[in-house]
Amino acid sequence: ENIWSNLKTAFCALAFLIVFVTLSNGLTAQNAGQQTDAAFIRKIYDQALTDGRCYPWLRDLCLGIGHRLSGSPGAEKAVNWTKAVLDTTGLDSVWLQPVMVPHWERGAPEQVQVTGSKQYGTFKLNALALGGSVGTNGKNISGEVIEVKTWEELDAYGERGTRGKIVFYNRPMDPTRIRTFEAYGSAVDQRSSGAVRAAKYGAVGVLVRSMNLRLDDYPHTGAMRYDSSYTLIPGVAISTNDAEKLSALLRAEGKATVSMRLDCRTLPDVLSYNVIGEIRGSEKPNDIIVVSGHLDSWDVGHGAHDDGAGCTQSMDVLRYFRRVGYRPRHTIRCVLFMNEENGLRGGREYAREAERKGEFHLCAIESDAGGFTPRGFSFDADDAVIGRFFEKVSDFQTLLAPYGLTLTRGGSGADIGPLKGQKGLLSGYSPDSQRYFEYHHAATDVFDAVNKRELELGAASMAALVFLLDKYGL
Amino acid sequence: ENIWSNLKTAFCALAFLIVFVTLSNGLTAQNAGQQTDAAFIRKIYDQALTDGRCYPWLRDLCLGIGHRLSGSPGAEKAVNWTKAVLDTTGLDSVWLQPVMVPHWERGAPEQVQVTGSKQYGTFKLNALALGGSVGTNGKNISGEVIEVKTWEELDAYGERGTRGKIVFYNRPMDPTRIRTFEAYGSAVDQRSSGAVRAAKYGAVGVLVRSMNLRLDDYPHTGAMRYDSSYTLIPGVAISTNDAEKLSALLRAEGKATVSMRLDCRTLPDVLSYNVIGEIRGSEKPNDIIVVSGHLDSWDVGHGAHDDGAGCTQSMDVLRYFRRVGYRPRHTIRCVLFMNEENGLRGGREYAREAERKGEFHLCAIESDAGGFTPRGFSFDADDAVIGRFFEKVSDFQTLLAPYGLTLTRGGSGADIGPLKGQKGLLSGYSPDSQRYFEYHHAATDVFDAVNKRELELGAASMAALVFLLDKYGL
Repeated sequence: ENIWSNLKTAFCALAFLIVFVTLSNGLTAQNAGQQTDAAFIRKIYDQALTDGRCYPWLRDLCLGIGHRLSGSPGAEKAVNWTKAVLDTTGLDSVWLQPVMVPHWERGAPEQVQVTGSKQYGTFKLNALALGGSVGTNGKNISGEVIEVKTWEELDAYGERGTRGKIVFYNRPMDPTRIRTFEAYGSAVDQRSSGAVRAAKYGAVGVLVRSMNLRLDDYPHTGAMRYDSSYTLIPGVAISTNDAEKLSALLRAEGKATVSMRLDCRTLPDVLSYNVIGEIRGSEKPNDIIVVSGHLDSWDVGHGAHDDGAGCTQSMDVLRYFRRVGYRPRHTIRCVLFMNEENGLRGGREYAREAERKGEFHLCAIESDAGGFTPRGFSFDADDAVIGRFFEKVSDFQTLLAPYGLTLTRGGSGADIGPLKGQKGLLSGYSPDSQRYFEYHHAATDVFDAVNKRELELGAASMAALVFLLDKYGL
Repeated sequence: ENIWSNLKTAFCALAFLIVFVTLSNGLTAQNAGQQTDAAFIRKIYDQALTDGRCYPWLRDLCLGIGHRLSGSPGAEKAVNWTKAVLDTTGLDSVWLQPVMVPHWERGAPEQVQVTGSKQYGTFKLNALALGGSVGTNGKNISGEVIEVKTWEELDAYGERGTRGKIVFYNRPMDPTRIRTFEAYGSAVDQRSSGAVRAAKYGAVGVLVRSMNLRLDDYPHTGAMRYDSSYTLIPGVAISTNDAEKLSALLRAEGKATVSMRLDCRTLPDVLSYNVIGEIRGSEKPNDIIVVSGHLDSWDVGHGAHDDGAGCTQSMDVLRYFRRVGYRPRHTIRCVLFMNEENGLRGGREYAREAERKGEFHLCAIESDAGGFTPRGFSFDADDAVIGRFFEKVSDFQTLLAPYGLTLTRGGSGADIGPLKGQKGLLSGYSPDSQRYFEYHHAATDVFDAVNKRELELGAASMAALVFLLDKYGL
């Protein structure tokens, strides 16, 4: 029994030693791998912060071209200019992907005013027609205003209280939401569905409080939809200050009349393009990682945060990889989508074409939440795919934490949504959201509202994630 | 043996049941506690985001009073005004703590120019005397410029190369540091020690590239020190654009001459005050939790981010607790320190007085890194204290994560530093740092550079941490 006991002890010690050596080798290898990855990510950030191009590119796009609504001359210029820039960055291929897009025009500036107020007489409201709105055929539409904050309030007015009136939707974005995109979600139904639901009760037009958390004088436009079963009535956004003023006036005077004259109209669809550039993968060229933004914008300001930022960041990501001499295993592609704002035609066409060509999108990342300081990425996918991803993501998390990035589940981006059927990963770049809705779809969204370092850090963050996905796959 | 076996089984089952019930009760209690805490924290944020005062207070401080260097009329007004505001918030006591502070004055605007350039002739540099600098006694000081980026380069010039010259320190802040305070740390030695080290070699003055990561036209002032063993020579900061221009000129022309005329001077010390308000603790009134900022600023811009933000946030934290009817166990105190920028007299006096009164500071939090979007808190303390804190901090972390806050080890704040000897916890509120140095100590640090939501979120974050520390102690 002594011999047995000694043998057992020796065997245990040996087993322990083997396990220990194996484990520590594994750990060392893992450590060395992490160090290499950390060094490469550091290199990307150094590149971005000392020799980035996204900021001067954004300056050129904003100050040289300006806003670029689908179908406009600005959009056409932006397509040609971004293609020409990508052509200089040494990619394997750069091309234009044709797509027919809607063509809506604002026309002459809106004339929207309150008439016959006891306190103020007649005064102008700071207003922008909502994108897609019908115009008023050279006439003034005028009506008494009814103010509502909920659909229930509108339903309570019903046809009797609404017919011939102008409905004023005045539910503010909820300031207590820490994520401002949730605050946007709490109010944007008024902008998108307000006209349809008011038309159903016979209203002649709608005013919508701008989607803006700040009180100021800038109206914020954005898409609205129609339902052809009801009369198409015009919709305009008014500034938050004017919404407060009009609401106070209604309380004080009991009634208010608004007149509006809108010159906007929808013209026939126009040929436009998604702009695409890629570095071909050395091992799996048909498995694709996309970085993207949308090239179109609303027709006010410069479309700087929305989404010149995402476009120039995506372009710079591919340039970083070329500059540091990285040879990707998968194809890395930059896509500048056309028509995110009022149709999503670019995103849909891209997904269709990918399907046709049998391309698999390992991951598509979109930056469309502004050029602000990075907070992380949110991931969306088929349950099984995302489950697997989050099992292995802790190494990614460790490597990205020094740059202030957190990886979470959540939404991704409108343009890449149509790729979801491929069962790859979709990801939205999430910068800090606090200031975004002060600029979104308004004249305030100009180049000067974007900070150079914040923009560069965002581009570097996207590149770091692309690198990890390329190296480790799903 | 059967009986025994059955008894053992029964006993095991019973023991298991006891453990299970105890554990699950514990977990339920813990869960319920967490839910109560989460709800209270939510209430604080709601209060801050819907009924905060820090933003209008900051507007009054910036636009009504403006900058407020120690010893200036602005500083005196700010003391009286903040005390009056605190008096309206229903605290248990509000008082002024006397402290003698340095009194330096800029006098007439600086005249700093390059003379006799072949390309440009004579041209003005955008310059600000460094705080504490001697003036030039109504004369022009003129000298040939030598440019250095390191102390080694200065030493290489030595006395022979430096005597009678003006030393131009042109090492930029390191843009690759993700935390801009580290980038500041990588360059600010030039501002603080440049004059002493140049005077040692016989220089007649120094120019320092502004501590600014952006290229623009604004000079950034800040403290410099002297060593009475050497001649006191004047020091000025020039804008980053001018630093680039001067450097290019030196490369192109081989030499450059600068003349400077500074009207600044140091006057006798002046009586000033820390402004203090508190809610008395119900259980341990002598154990104190401090929220703080510094009331003095440099004498340009409004001192909005530095540090009007920290002051009005700290004031609002105490107001939230009053508004939601919270009765703290410990004393919660708001301290607006005087003279952080050029002497730290307020911070030192506060610590001395606390010592004298036998007060224990459980935790002191300072907000002095700008009114930007919250990222977290960094904690500094005696090793044993901080070790214990980080053992129990994971519950705090869970509660604060939904607000984007991370708790880390690191620095705290200059004014609360003198409290370190008490072996309590020191904490620095850490907002996003990317834009801070574009405003720091420059004419750009104005009210409009501060975002309402970001400021409010910071104040709420401080209040949430104070609540957890008050409830759970160290």
